[in-house]
Amino acid sequence: MPATAPLAPDRFDVDTPALLVDLARLDRNIARMNTIAARLGVDLRPHVKTAKCTQIARRIVGGGTGPVTVSTLREAEYFVADGFRDLLYAVSIVPSKLARAAALVRAGASVQLIVDDVATASDIAVAAQREDVTFEVLIEIDADGHRAGLRPMDPRIVEIARGLEAASHLRFGGVMTHAGASYGCVGAEALRRHAELERSAVVQAAAQLRTAGFDCARVSVGSTPSMSFAEDLSGVTEARVGVYVFNDLVQSNLGVCTVNDIALSVLATVISHKRDTGRVIIDAGGLALSKDHGTAGQAIDYGYGQVCAIDGQPLADLRVVEVNQEHGLIAPRDASASAAMFAALPIGCRVRVLPNHACMTAAAYDTYQVDDGVALQRWPRCNGW
Amino acid sequence: MPATAPLAPDRFDVDTPALLVDLARLDRNIARMNTIAARLGVDLRPHVKTAKCTQIARRIVGGGTGPVTVSTLREAEYFVADGFRDLLYAVSIVPSKLARAAALVRAGASVQLIVDDVATASDIAVAAQREDVTFEVLIEIDADGHRAGLRPMDPRIVEIARGLEAASHLRFGGVMTHAGASYGCVGAEALRRHAELERSAVVQAAAQLRTAGFDCARVSVGSTPSMSFAEDLSGVTEARVGVYVFNDLVQSNLGVCTVNDIALSVLATVISHKRDTGRVIIDAGGLALSKDHGTAGQAIDYGYGQVCAIDGQPLADLRVVEVNQEHGLIAPRDASASAAMFAALPIGCRVRVLPNHACMTAAAYDTYQVDDGVALQRWPRCNGW
Repeated sequence: MPATAPLAPDRFDVDTPALLVDLARLDRNIARMNTIAARLGVDLRPHVKTAKCTQIARRIVGGGTGPVTVSTLREAEYFVADGFRDLLYAVSIVPSKLARAAALVRAGASVQLIVDDVATASDIAVAAQREDVTFEVLIEIDADGHRAGLRPMDPRIVEIARGLEAASHLRFGGVMTHAGASYGCVGAEALRRHAELERSAVVQAAAQLRTAGFDCARVSVGSTPSMSFAEDLSGVTEARVGVYVFNDLVQSNLGVCTVNDIALSVLATVISHKRDTGRVIIDAGGLALSKDHGTAGQAIDYGYGQVCAIDGQPLADLRVVEVNQEHGLIAPRDASASAAMFAALPIGCRVRVLPNHACMTAAAYDTYQVDDGVALQRWPRCNGW
Repeated sequence: MPATAPLAPDRFDVDTPALLVDLARLDRNIARMNTIAARLGVDLRPHVKTAKCTQIARRIVGGGTGPVTVSTLREAEYFVADGFRDLLYAVSIVPSKLARAAALVRAGASVQLIVDDVATASDIAVAAQREDVTFEVLIEIDADGHRAGLRPMDPRIVEIARGLEAASHLRFGGVMTHAGASYGCVGAEALRRHAELERSAVVQAAAQLRTAGFDCARVSVGSTPSMSFAEDLSGVTEARVGVYVFNDLVQSNLGVCTVNDIALSVLATVISHKRDTGRVIIDAGGLALSKDHGTAGQAIDYGYGQVCAIDGQPLADLRVVEVNQEHGLIAPRDASASAAMFAALPIGCRVRVLPNHACMTAAAYDTYQVDDGVALQRWPRCNGW
């Protein structure tokens, strides 16, 4: 713990809790992933569900109009309204959602959908025809049993592709997977193996389709941990990565980044000293930090967040150990450091808290306070459905 | 599990995920707490942090303009803009927040603040004078070591009251506590004892103050579990209860309500069948349900929510066992019930999910879909800070 009280530069003079972005770190994270993608020879289709912010998405895609990946139709609508034109909606589509997706195509966007079910693909074909709008559709592959999708050699993959190609308003576009179990990997070797598992799953599915006579133009993978550790992505055309723009404590535990690469933090104010229980209380609780405790089973359990001084320097011993709706309770890992904690964090001072899971924490805010080193800029984000 | 597929009444034809309120249950929950308060002889100062919605707050206070409790200044601003005039901001105040609070007083509201620190009370006195606005201030008492506040016999309580009374722009109003450890109680007897612990803590603090010559007009408690089980609130003047308006699975585990008293649910659509892993996937994930797993240590672990048919009937065996950002994975408690689950929940059908913690789940939405039994009304809610 530093001997001096945290700095309080004027540029952090905003109401708390607030969502801070360190612009230099953001840009560094973006550049690093661009380098990885170039080395591996794949295009990026960044998943903008993490930041849900046009200004950040533009920085990622170098000022263009896509390609991006979205997780909700509201995101899709937000990004299309702001000029993006090439979107993959990476959650299984159902017919009741097709009218909203069709409106985006009519507005000039290319919207790719995903399916993993024969009957649903057929229902989508009917709905697309009714909307008189054409969609490209990818088939979701399950690489690791994590979530949705068909196993790579499932014969229904070919059956779905056949149905898509036969439909008047659908076009079969390829295969995609999300190897979400990479988040559970421990160690670089396990992550390298998982990246290869992800690659081989979609490449195998693509081979099955090509053998059956289908062109399988897109072969898409997506997870920040597996992309960060992949050694070879032969046969893959694009990667949908999201959380790398901010990084977070879960990613740092995985070895994707260091704690000093985390570009997102919650600015909070110390509001109470609870000396008898050894807790410093801040005005960022379960809503401001999220209740995601994703580091619970990892190498370092950060509770609900790593506490930093206002200048971003981690106060290594201090974490948010408990949250109520609007209260965060900070304690030292070493209880004998309580006195130093109270001295370093007087009531009224400000701290920054690094999040376990950037996507979840950011979702509580409608605005980013973007720190360019001189002043804070306000960038909006899109939430909800 | 019912043999028939869930009903799909037209009135639930909204995009999913959506936040549903069962108006009949809401009104029943409000009436029940009013009866409890009347029996115990205390006023209610409902905590509107749960619903953050004018229409619901008005139903609670019988159409009046307060009194209410808020957890953020944005809530305070929202409710004052909608005509509420008597608010307690129940999170320790710090000087940097006083300007926003003062603006509310200038707008015609009475805003009560809370403190638990001698130096901070003194800083607040200076800030209030600078704003030239008068606040009533309560002293926070710690009943159970749960969060903030001073222990009931701490001599600093009198010292703070003295400072408040001496300040030109502050007025000492009384004492308040939140016995949040009631959420960890198991069984009715433990909850009754905890309610008495909460009562005796503030009453003891008030007695200390009166002995020292202070009028201690307000003696305020607040927690839905302790209020629901309290047998006697002698000496208490008001109760700040919040989550009872909706109730949730945590409250049902505590015995505060039954599952059929839960007025809040998330409407979701089944988007994928993952037969090999035994999961039905819905479009309500960690953002739509929240990552609050408050039932984890309770009698019944509901995962991330209890799954119900569209008519609200719990499908007792089914819960959301895992969440990603926009995916919720449903599984039966009894794995042999998988086939029945897939049959009951076809892709495209709708379900409702009861939340672990209503306050956290509701916070992801800007709108309630309020079901009055005939149609859905849209009621806005206020989020953020």
